[in-house]
Amino acid sequence: MQISLQRDGARGEPPVYRQIAAQIRAEIAAERLSAGARLPPIRELARRLRVNRDTVALAYEELARAGVVEATVGRGTFVTGVAGRRERAAFDPRLSPLAERLLELERARPRFGSAQQAVPMHALIPDPALYPVDAFRRALSRVFQRHGAELLVYGAPQGLPRMREALAGWLRGAGIGIGADEVVLCHGVSQGIALALRLFTEAGDCVALEEPTYNNALSAVSGLGLKPVAVPMREDGLDLAALDRVLARSEVKVLYTIPTFHNPMGISTSLAHRNALLEIAARNEKPVVEDAYEMDLRIDGQPVPPLAALDRSGLVVHLSSFSKSLFPGVRVGGVAARGRLVDALLALKQATDLSGALPLQAALAELIECGAYQRHLASLRRELRQRRDALLEALERHMPPGARWTRPEGGYQVWVELPDGIDTSELLPDAVAAGVLFAPGAQYHHDGRASRCLRLSFAIADAEALRRGVKILGEVIRRRGTVAARRADRVLI
Amino acid sequence: MQISLQRDGARGEPPVYRQIAAQIRAEIAAERLSAGARLPPIRELARRLRVNRDTVALAYEELARAGVVEATVGRGTFVTGVAGRRERAAFDPRLSPLAERLLELERARPRFGSAQQAVPMHALIPDPALYPVDAFRRALSRVFQRHGAELLVYGAPQGLPRMREALAGWLRGAGIGIGADEVVLCHGVSQGIALALRLFTEAGDCVALEEPTYNNALSAVSGLGLKPVAVPMREDGLDLAALDRVLARSEVKVLYTIPTFHNPMGISTSLAHRNALLEIAARNEKPVVEDAYEMDLRIDGQPVPPLAALDRSGLVVHLSSFSKSLFPGVRVGGVAARGRLVDALLALKQATDLSGALPLQAALAELIECGAYQRHLASLRRELRQRRDALLEALERHMPPGARWTRPEGGYQVWVELPDGIDTSELLPDAVAAGVLFAPGAQYHHDGRASRCLRLSFAIADAEALRRGVKILGEVIRRRGTVAARRADRVLI
Repeated sequence: MQISLQRDGARGEPPVYRQIAAQIRAEIAAERLSAGARLPPIRELARRLRVNRDTVALAYEELARAGVVEATVGRGTFVTGVAGRRERAAFDPRLSPLAERLLELERARPRFGSAQQAVPMHALIPDPALYPVDAFRRALSRVFQRHGAELLVYGAPQGLPRMREALAGWLRGAGIGIGADEVVLCHGVSQGIALALRLFTEAGDCVALEEPTYNNALSAVSGLGLKPVAVPMREDGLDLAALDRVLARSEVKVLYTIPTFHNPMGISTSLAHRNALLEIAARNEKPVVEDAYEMDLRIDGQPVPPLAALDRSGLVVHLSSFSKSLFPGVRVGGVAARGRLVDALLALKQATDLSGALPLQAALAELIECGAYQRHLASLRRELRQRRDALLEALERHMPPGARWTRPEGGYQVWVELPDGIDTSELLPDAVAAGVLFAPGAQYHHDGRASRCLRLSFAIADAEALRRGVKILGEVIRRRGTVAARRADRVLI
Repeated sequence: MQISLQRDGARGEPPVYRQIAAQIRAEIAAERLSAGARLPPIRELARRLRVNRDTVALAYEELARAGVVEATVGRGTFVTGVAGRRERAAFDPRLSPLAERLLELERARPRFGSAQQAVPMHALIPDPALYPVDAFRRALSRVFQRHGAELLVYGAPQGLPRMREALAGWLRGAGIGIGADEVVLCHGVSQGIALALRLFTEAGDCVALEEPTYNNALSAVSGLGLKPVAVPMREDGLDLAALDRVLARSEVKVLYTIPTFHNPMGISTSLAHRNALLEIAARNEKPVVEDAYEMDLRIDGQPVPPLAALDRSGLVVHLSSFSKSLFPGVRVGGVAARGRLVDALLALKQATDLSGALPLQAALAELIECGAYQRHLASLRRELRQRRDALLEALERHMPPGARWTRPEGGYQVWVELPDGIDTSELLPDAVAAGVLFAPGAQYHHDGRASRCLRLSFAIADAEALRRGVKILGEVIRRRGTVAARRADRVLI
């Protein structure tokens, strides 16, 4: 048993007896001291550690009070095993059905293993090599110098006024005529999705969703005890006739949609489609949650106003994010809404986690105000255009006949439909082994059913890696096709 | 209409036509341009701004696409009012019953107005004058220099390993034999409460709660659609016989309790009480959520192990916080649990907001590892002892006969019971007017019923201010008593 003591009280260390107790506990927790083991006699340990015997006695007493050791007069002090982890599992907790459902969803996520060398086309994580880290560090430092402790109190649940001003200004630039008082900051758009859905739903209610759709939105829906009602996606966006039928159902309370650079499909809907969608929602008196998480990542084509900019009746709740256009670590998203919805969002946010992290909100506002965010976006878009073009060219070259894919005007993802008969979840292990990662389509289905589609991301991998990755993917698909054909042959024979 | 343009493309500004469009939108949003107003002719605005006429035409086209303006051939371009805020409210959103309930709770919160001069004894916000701001700023800067972009990706839902190690080590020091893999970091203990409750409950289930209890826990329970079942607090903690009866009910899924420096009462339960509570929970097979938010703020008396340290069967989910012992702005709390509960917590955290803010987690770990947190705690505790003693002395001097109060051994709050016949919610406006703020007891009741109790906080106000505040409070209570007595007289006559 190794115990090392810090005796310099000025450094704010705990008293020596607590240090001793803590380290004995750590030994037990780490299973280096197991149940039944005898602790050294007080006198002996005191001598070894060069402390007073009372100090060791105090440590042992504290351990005994905690039930971690037991002293038997004349025999010594023994580890009870209470603090050991294995012995603790006597209680078998009955998890809520909801928690069980989420555990199942987690288990269903594809595993990519630790494929360090593989081309990472599976995730929508912006490339860390492109983050303006120094600008952000300097912004953080500046706001701390200027505001100090003000940034370390509880913020208002609505978020830092300066960041709300910056976001509202940004959204006005995109055509959403909104004021800072109509914006609620949230912990990433993922929290925004939950807050927005909870405005209109309670456990048991239904939510209309695109299919395929963002897998974490599906988790959020499950996590809230809501039921997803899938509306199929076509090549130009949601099937509007199907949407009309779904929104007419009284148990469907709200639509969640990603009109711009859809996840996972990468497509962006037309102005006409957006106006038609809003007309359907208004006629059915159903609110719309617009997830505009990649809105700032247009790399070509004509910008189309977000739903919130076209909304004439205040039925759109608009979610914005900086996780894709800057970096996820800033953890600041925004929910823009109208009137009573803002008050209700604030009450929900307050009941959820009181307030956001003001230092990060302040530093982000600083980045936007000083133009660093805009500069970053300009160079990010240039890089993205190269990557997307490289990816599309490589697909042209390496995909088998019968495969189709989307041609996004922005964002990070291309949706590939493979020829019939291939389940992309089954394809994944081969791809991982061959050195390329992708996101199989099944996880974007509300019921997780098999899919012959997959999502390729050009977020992390550069043009060079994307070409390599698609080439490998093409080979994996062809091999699979051959095997499938052979199997089919055998069946025929 | 004022329009100013940035033409230095290198700074990453949006194209000039979008700048024009955005500023016209801002004018409309700010109601300086109202529905029906005519925009300047393209030719005229182009001349004024010294831009090409096509640029203005593009801006107007974008505004027209967004429905913000309408062009009528030969007459000009007019504001439609779509972007105006007032005109938007046509949609009357049907909020979920849950959102409505939370709005009601928000409305019931006491209003303190902008009583800048009043002695702030109402809130448990640590005194910003005591925050180690510079140490934190330096820690942030150091971790950024060391880790850079690594801190700006999505973190694992469980939180930064380094911070989990630091927290697990800290908890082991308090007797909880736990490893870093059994800790899930969360966005403040408020998020931790929701995560922990959701492990065991779904909408409609019941939660056993102390009464009085932390008002934001009541909000969280409401926010999750759960029903609070109140177990009365006595002077030595929860009424254990009542607890046993409540936990025996099958619809009650979990107990939420604050054994150390209870909010709002300030009391800490004995070792015997804790062991008895755990025995009752184990016998009824009900898990316990232990909120240990002020655990690190003991200022005298003998430390008592947290429930999680005494727990022999793994039924305690332990919540820890740095919001009270350091500052709220760090927004890092911890949930410690066992086995399957950890997996379920991770699934819930993932579905809630993907991941925490790594820069803040890293900076906090740095503060703990370098000893700055411990040094801060030592000086904070010294200051708190002075404040508490000043507050208790002042109560002795200024409270009317028949008033009683708790004598906390740590934390920030004293619970005062006034003589019968006083409703402290009614007393509050007088107190605010006289220059002292307190937290009326009603908000700590699950049903918001009237209370003759109030919570006084020594978190923000220093010893001097506390003496002044309690003196004023004494006067306000006495005046109230006289008025009440006079009213009673009148009734008698």
